[in-house]
Amino acid sequence: MRLSSKVDKLPYSPIRKLVPFAEQAEKAGKKIYYLNIGQPDLPTPQEAIQFLKDNIPEVIAYSHSAGMEELRRKFQGYYASQVGVDLPLSSFLVTTGASEALIFTFSVLLNSGDEVIIPEPMYANYIGFASVVDATVKPITSKIEEGFALPPINEFEKLITPRTKAIMICNPNNPTGYLYSYDELRQLAELIKKHDLWLIVDEVYREFTFDGKKHISILTFEDLRDRTIVIDSVSKRYSACGARIGLVVSANEQFMDAVLRMAQARLSPPTLGQILSLGLLRLSMEVVMNMVKEYEKRRDVTIEALKQIEGVIVPKPSGAFYTVAELPVDDAEKFSKWLLTDFDYEGETIMFAPAAGFYINKEFGKKQVRIAFVLEADKMERAMRILKEALEQYKSMQP
Amino acid sequence: MRLSSKVDKLPYSPIRKLVPFAEQAEKAGKKIYYLNIGQPDLPTPQEAIQFLKDNIPEVIAYSHSAGMEELRRKFQGYYASQVGVDLPLSSFLVTTGASEALIFTFSVLLNSGDEVIIPEPMYANYIGFASVVDATVKPITSKIEEGFALPPINEFEKLITPRTKAIMICNPNNPTGYLYSYDELRQLAELIKKHDLWLIVDEVYREFTFDGKKHISILTFEDLRDRTIVIDSVSKRYSACGARIGLVVSANEQFMDAVLRMAQARLSPPTLGQILSLGLLRLSMEVVMNMVKEYEKRRDVTIEALKQIEGVIVPKPSGAFYTVAELPVDDAEKFSKWLLTDFDYEGETIMFAPAAGFYINKEFGKKQVRIAFVLEADKMERAMRILKEALEQYKSMQP
Repeated sequence: MRLSSKVDKLPYSPIRKLVPFAEQAEKAGKKIYYLNIGQPDLPTPQEAIQFLKDNIPEVIAYSHSAGMEELRRKFQGYYASQVGVDLPLSSFLVTTGASEALIFTFSVLLNSGDEVIIPEPMYANYIGFASVVDATVKPITSKIEEGFALPPINEFEKLITPRTKAIMICNPNNPTGYLYSYDELRQLAELIKKHDLWLIVDEVYREFTFDGKKHISILTFEDLRDRTIVIDSVSKRYSACGARIGLVVSANEQFMDAVLRMAQARLSPPTLGQILSLGLLRLSMEVVMNMVKEYEKRRDVTIEALKQIEGVIVPKPSGAFYTVAELPVDDAEKFSKWLLTDFDYEGETIMFAPAAGFYINKEFGKKQVRIAFVLEADKMERAMRILKEALEQYKSMQP
Repeated sequence: MRLSSKVDKLPYSPIRKLVPFAEQAEKAGKKIYYLNIGQPDLPTPQEAIQFLKDNIPEVIAYSHSAGMEELRRKFQGYYASQVGVDLPLSSFLVTTGASEALIFTFSVLLNSGDEVIIPEPMYANYIGFASVVDATVKPITSKIEEGFALPPINEFEKLITPRTKAIMICNPNNPTGYLYSYDELRQLAELIKKHDLWLIVDEVYREFTFDGKKHISILTFEDLRDRTIVIDSVSKRYSACGARIGLVVSANEQFMDAVLRMAQARLSPPTLGQILSLGLLRLSMEVVMNMVKEYEKRRDVTIEALKQIEGVIVPKPSGAFYTVAELPVDDAEKFSKWLLTDFDYEGETIMFAPAAGFYINKEFGKKQVRIAFVLEADKMERAMRILKEALEQYKSMQP
C-alpha cells in the first residue's frame, strides 16, 4: 500500500506554503497585505454576473465536453478580432481553468520520462502538472540582471535530448512580468522547427502589457501553427479566477482530437462558469483595458517604491501583474515567514511568495520573492513601506 | 513532433461516440430519446439556485485548494449524519467533479505501468483517467446472467501482480445498476488487506437504491479505513452535473496530503459550483429521496417493458439509474447507430450507449447497451415501445 513515487516530486505550492503562518498571524490580529497570490481584488464585471443570474437553466447540466458551442464561438470571435488569428472552431476547447488546459496538454504530449524545457523562474504549478504525467521539466535559468529576458537560444539547444518533446514559455511571464519580444519568439520558433518540437505558450496575461508595449501571440507565427499550443483563461483578463474557465487553442487537429478524448473522460467544464464567461465575452474590451491601466498604476508605485529600498534589485516588468525582486536577505523564504510570525509595523505585515519555489535549480532565487501587485495602488505603496521597515529591522537583528 | 503514446490507449467516450449521428438525425427532424448519458432531466433544486444567486460575491475568486472550508464542513456533516462515519475535516477535499477526484486519486497512487483491477463492464472514463497517468486497468468480467454481481474473489486474486496497487469498484454500479452486498464488500476488504492494496470506491450514486435496499459505504469498514478512498459528487444526488463539484474522501493522511498538493497545483475547484453546493447541502435529504423515488418508478417501467421484448436479457438493477441489457442483435453498436441513421417510429428514435465501450475484454458486451433511465416514466415507456419496433424491423432486415 504505497503511493506513487511521483508524489515525492510533487511540490507544495510556493504560493500557499506560508498560508498556515498567515492564518496564525490573522488570528493574532495582524493585518496582512497578500501579495503572494495572483488573485486580483478588482470586481468581476457586474454585467456578466447579472447575465449569469439571468441565464441559470432549470437543470444545471453537463455541457459539450469541448465547452458550450456558443462560448467556443465567442472565443473564436475574440481570437479573430483581438489576437488577429482566424482559426476553425475545432481549434478551441474549453477547460476547467488554464490548469486543466495544461494537464491535458502535458498528458497528450508527454510520456513518463519525456522532457519539456521551461525558462525559470517559472510558474511553479508547471512542475506539479508535469509530475502528474511523470514527465521531467528541464529548467533554463533567466537572470534578474537581464530583466529575466529569454536565455540565449544556444542554451536552450544544449538542453535538447531525444526525450525532449516541447519547449514552454509564459508570455507575459508569471512570475517575472517579462514580455517576450518578436525577436525572442522568432528565435524560439526556428529552434522548435529545427528540432521538430512542440511549443506551448501560456498567454493568460496577454492583455496585461504596459508602457504601450504590444503582446505578440505565438499563434500569429503561421509557419509554426501546426506545432503551437496556446493556453488561455478568463481568470485574470476578467478578474474571474473562481469561474475556472480556461482554453486550449491549437490548429493541430491530431492534438485537438486527443485533447477532446481526454475532455470527454471528464465530461464537461463547469457550466456556471461557462455561462458567466458568455457574459464576460459580451463585454467591450475597454473593460479589460481599464483593468490593465489600473495594474499599470499599481506596477508603477510598486516598482518605484522597491527601487528606493536599499539593496533591493528589481527589473521593471512590462506585463502580467508580478515582479520578482531580490531582497538584501540571506534566505527570502525565512524572511517571508518571519514577516508573518515575528514582525509587524503598526499592526500590519505583508505576505510574499518566496521565489525559490519558482526555480528548479536550487542555487538560484534564494534571495528572491515574487510580488503580485494585485492590491490598489495606495495599498501597494503601504505594503512597500512595510517592507522597507521590515528589511531594516531584519538587518539590525542579524549578527 | 509526436504525441504521447498514451493517446493511442485513450478511448472516445462510448457515451458520446454516436453523438454526430444523433446530431444529423435531429437535423433531419427526428425526435430522439437520449438514454445514452447519465444526465438527469430533473430540475436542480431551485432553492439552491436561489441561494447561489443571492450569494455571488463581487470578486469571483479562487477558493481554498481543498474547497471552501464551509463546504467541506457541510460535507463532513453529511457524512456523519447520512453515511454514518465521523471523519476529520482533513479527510475531505473538494474537486472539480468526481472526474477530478479520480484523476487525483489515480495520479497519487499509480506510477506508469502500475495496475488497478476493476470489474467490467465499467464506467468507461475510468480507462481514460488511467491512461492519463499511463497506468493499466486490469478488467475482471461480471456476468449479465449473474445480474453483474461481484465476480468470485479468487478471480480477483488471480489478477494480482507485483504491479497491482488498487482495486476499484463503483457502488451502486455504473453502468450495471448493481448494488454490492455486505458479504461482497467484506470479501473484497479481506483481499485488500491480505495483499496490502488500496480500495477505491466510487459512491456517487450512494442514495440511488431501490426496493428498500440500503447502500453500504466502504467507509463504514473501520478495519479498512486507512486504505480506502471514496469518490463522491453532487452531480447525480442533486441533479447538478454541470456544477462540477466532487469530493475525495479518505482517512489516510499521507494520501490526502498528496492530493492536496495536487489540488494546489490547479489552485481551486469552481467557486460558483461550490456556492451552489452550499445551497444544495442545506436542503433536507427528502429532496434527494424524492428524486430516488422518481428513478425507481422509471426503472420499474423500463425493466418491465424490456422484459416483454423477445430476446432481450436484462437484470433488474437495485441502484444508480442505469441498466445493461443484452439485445437480440449481432452488434449493439451497429444497431445503435442504425437507430439514429436509418430508423424512426412515427418520427422518433432512441439513443443508447453501446456497452462494448464499457468492457476492456472485447469478446464481451458486443450485444449489450447501457440504458440510462433519465427521462420521465412515460417517456421511458415510449422509448421502450420504439425499441420493440426497432428490433422487429431490424430482425426482418437481416438475411
